[in-house]
Amino acid sequence: MTFSVKNIISIADLADKDILTILDRADKMERLARGGKQSRLLEGRILATLFYEPSTRTRLSFESAMLRLGGSTVSVAQVGASSVVKGESLADTIRTVESYSDIIVLRHPQEGAAQWAAEVASIPIINAGDGAGRHPTQTLLDLATIRKSQGKLEGLNVAVLGDLRFGRTVHSLSYAITRFTDKLYCVAPEGLELPPEIVMDLEGQNKEIVQTGDLQGILPDLDVLYVTRIQKERFPSPADYERVRGQYVIDLPLLEHAKPTLDILHPLPRVDEIAPAVDKTPYARYFSQVFNGLVVRMAVLDLLMEAHKT
Amino acid sequence: MTFSVKNIISIADLADKDILTILDRADKMERLARGGKQSRLLEGRILATLFYEPSTRTRLSFESAMLRLGGSTVSVAQVGASSVVKGESLADTIRTVESYSDIIVLRHPQEGAAQWAAEVASIPIINAGDGAGRHPTQTLLDLATIRKSQGKLEGLNVAVLGDLRFGRTVHSLSYAITRFTDKLYCVAPEGLELPPEIVMDLEGQNKEIVQTGDLQGILPDLDVLYVTRIQKERFPSPADYERVRGQYVIDLPLLEHAKPTLDILHPLPRVDEIAPAVDKTPYARYFSQVFNGLVVRMAVLDLLMEAHKT
Amino acid sequence: MTFSVKNIISIADLADKDILTILDRADKMERLARGGKQSRLLEGRILATLFYEPSTRTRLSFESAMLRLGGSTVSVAQVGASSVVKGESLADTIRTVESYSDIIVLRHPQEGAAQWAAEVASIPIINAGDGAGRHPTQTLLDLATIRKSQGKLEGLNVAVLGDLRFGRTVHSLSYAITRFTDKLYCVAPEGLELPPEIVMDLEGQNKEIVQTGDLQGILPDLDVLYVTRIQKERFPSPADYERVRGQYVIDLPLLEHAKPTLDILHPLPRVDEIAPAVDKTPYARYFSQVFNGLVVRMAVLDLLMEAHKT
Repeated sequence: MTFSVKNIISIADLADKDILTILDRADKMERLARGGKQSRLLEGRILATLFYEPSTRTRLSFESAMLRLGGSTVSVAQVGASSVVKGESLADTIRTVESYSDIIVLRHPQEGAAQWAAEVASIPIINAGDGAGRHPTQTLLDLATIRKSQGKLEGLNVAVLGDLRFGRTVHSLSYAITRFTDKLYCVAPEGLELPPEIVMDLEGQNKEIVQTGDLQGILPDLDVLYVTRIQKERFPSPADYERVRGQYVIDLPLLEHAKPTLDILHPLPRVDEIAPAVDKTPYARYFSQVFNGLVVRMAVLDLLMEAHKT
Repeated sequence: MTFSVKNIISIADLADKDILTILDRADKMERLARGGKQSRLLEGRILATLFYEPSTRTRLSFESAMLRLGGSTVSVAQVGASSVVKGESLADTIRTVESYSDIIVLRHPQEGAAQWAAEVASIPIINAGDGAGRHPTQTLLDLATIRKSQGKLEGLNVAVLGDLRFGRTVHSLSYAITRFTDKLYCVAPEGLELPPEIVMDLEGQNKEIVQTGDLQGILPDLDVLYVTRIQKERFPSPADYERVRGQYVIDLPLLEHAKPTLDILHPLPRVDEIAPAVDKTPYARYFSQVFNGLVVRMAVLDLLMEAHKT
Repeated sequence: MTFSVKNIISIADLADKDILTILDRADKMERLARGGKQSRLLEGRILATLFYEPSTRTRLSFESAMLRLGGSTVSVAQVGASSVVKGESLADTIRTVESYSDIIVLRHPQEGAAQWAAEVASIPIINAGDGAGRHPTQTLLDLATIRKSQGKLEGLNVAVLGDLRFGRTVHSLSYAITRFTDKLYCVAPEGLELPPEIVMDLEGQNKEIVQTGDLQGILPDLDVLYVTRIQKERFPSPADYERVRGQYVIDLPLLEHAKPTLDILHPLPRVDEIAPAVDKTPYARYFSQVFNGLVVRMAVLDLLMEAHKT
């Protein structure tokens, strides 16, 4: 029951029980998240969103979460274009913004920035992405979506698909989901496979990592298919890209091989890796993920403010 | 009494009775619009403003309208500069933002964008301008201003002045006001006349379209003079512009010919087409229009949220 | 007790008793400023921040102040990048924005802009900086910090240090603090001294202006040391800058000569003119200043709205 986490910097810092506490609280937030009756849970509290690189989607999600809880927000949508930082250290900026707010959501291009901010701040810090590093509320919303749809996290057959080499979302999810499962399917074009150090890490924890190019072959076994975008610019030539690309487009013919209870997730934005026709099938969970992002962020804000008071 | 409109995309979609329902509701909003006692009408509701091109004036008006009603707002003031759209379709963006909000105000450079957004959204969409297309709340606030000042919309002598060829505000108003009147005066420099297809449309509805260059001649007959800006860059040469310009500047000497009850409107911003000395005369209605924009938007937000619930 | 000030344009417009009324009200705001229980003092009121040049720090401080008082905000963070001003006069912009709000905070590059805005507006205007001119809430928060820490304003030995020639913060404070004290120490590199006209002004009011380069020499006498940034680009050559710079860095060895009750202030952002090691000493007041900025702005908003009602 007790949640003693003071900041949300990395999913790795959270014990399994902390993750489950967040997901449980998120479930309770659903009705409030749909609007209507105004909650007073965080009334009188101010969230500051401090974004050193733009991420409108994440910023709106946090702002909306705060508003749904009855709090209010101040925002620096693009610190770079602003005067906060004129030669100022991140530490001084944080010590300034903490006078104006009760909790800070930080996005910063540099890995470790959020950890550093948490060390100087006297109020809770939530990492909304630090470079190639962490974006823990994304992983939490992925887990929330899977648990809500499948009814559990344990023992599921999960595949991650797409650019597994550079995608921080996928790295973070791979570690997080294998806390609850024993196996992970990885489907990536040549050269974009999951980094060997992550594979070794997971295998070191007795997880089975199945690396395959045969999506159709594994599809009947899957409970969850997590799709990510393959960026054209990763390929040596447009021809290489075009050759690979078709293999990894999720469309209706491919889904004939799927379990009826398969859930397809995607962190969005998508380009064309999932055909629009899939949106209307019961497999599609990527817009539910957006809503789950809202409820997970409401849960995180609520729990952190609660823990901060005590 | 019943208002069953689900989205505000174009003034053409609204029946006369819908327009009058909005104007009636707007009248009731006046006291709330002046601030002071906090309304709770839209408490617990979030408005998302999603602007693919900047329009600070319109954005602030909608945000203020929402706040005056007790709701709150999240804003993307410049989608172009943000990550919402990185290769993402408008449909996906709308399906994302609708998780964060209860109603969306959209401004988009492409004609038809708002209609398309309304088709994919499960919450109400308000068009705040789509390219050369529609901007229905502007027209509603023009009508509200005329009705409030003249006491009615029917049987008025209305003139539109300025760039009648490219001005979307004027096109929309021309259609809307002639629902209630039988005649429209059009005063434009050569080459900037009302497009022939609009003239034919209106004449096909048995409206009399009086096209004239003689502003002073018609002024004694006018109840309403709607002034718009003539853009220098529309003219073949600066000399052509200078020659025409003087004819269409509204100043005190010209207004000696006006009815005492004449109302001068302007969608703002103005440059120099109305002399500042006119601001203090009882003819000037252009700053009332700004306030009427607020009350009309409050009415639209309130009615749409009401209709959405049922 | 009565506060009849209608706008905050310049500290020079405020009588001593007005300043003290603001500081007294600010003291009462401290508890509210820390968040928690939501105040309803300005419920139903909207603050518009209208920034023609970016100043995130000041904007956030005002927005947070308004939220802490139960009001809400609409913001134009960068008017220049927006459509408010397309060829529009400041007067028209103000007359537009006043329809959307109950009080306006204006930042503008042009000296006198705030005064001009106050003349056309029917609601209170707060100057948040106009060019090389005024930024009165900065001076008020400096005074509030000094009074809170020293227990009084009268009879203190205050020094201003750094770029005294171009720093508007320092000019404004020099006039304001000498309303309460008889002496002012000025420590500046050659060429960056306090402008002679200010020195003459103050001497004309029988104030003693001690201009010295010997910071260490005067330090034992000081109650307050107000540090500002020396901008590299003010110097003829990088070598000149480096030569001067070391003299004016506040660090622990220097502070061995200080009174135990010395307060060091800085308007922030700082670069390296105060060593980070100083932050943890009891001398450091620059982060308290940030918080005092919040409470002073709460006081100003509250007093202006109160005076506006009557």
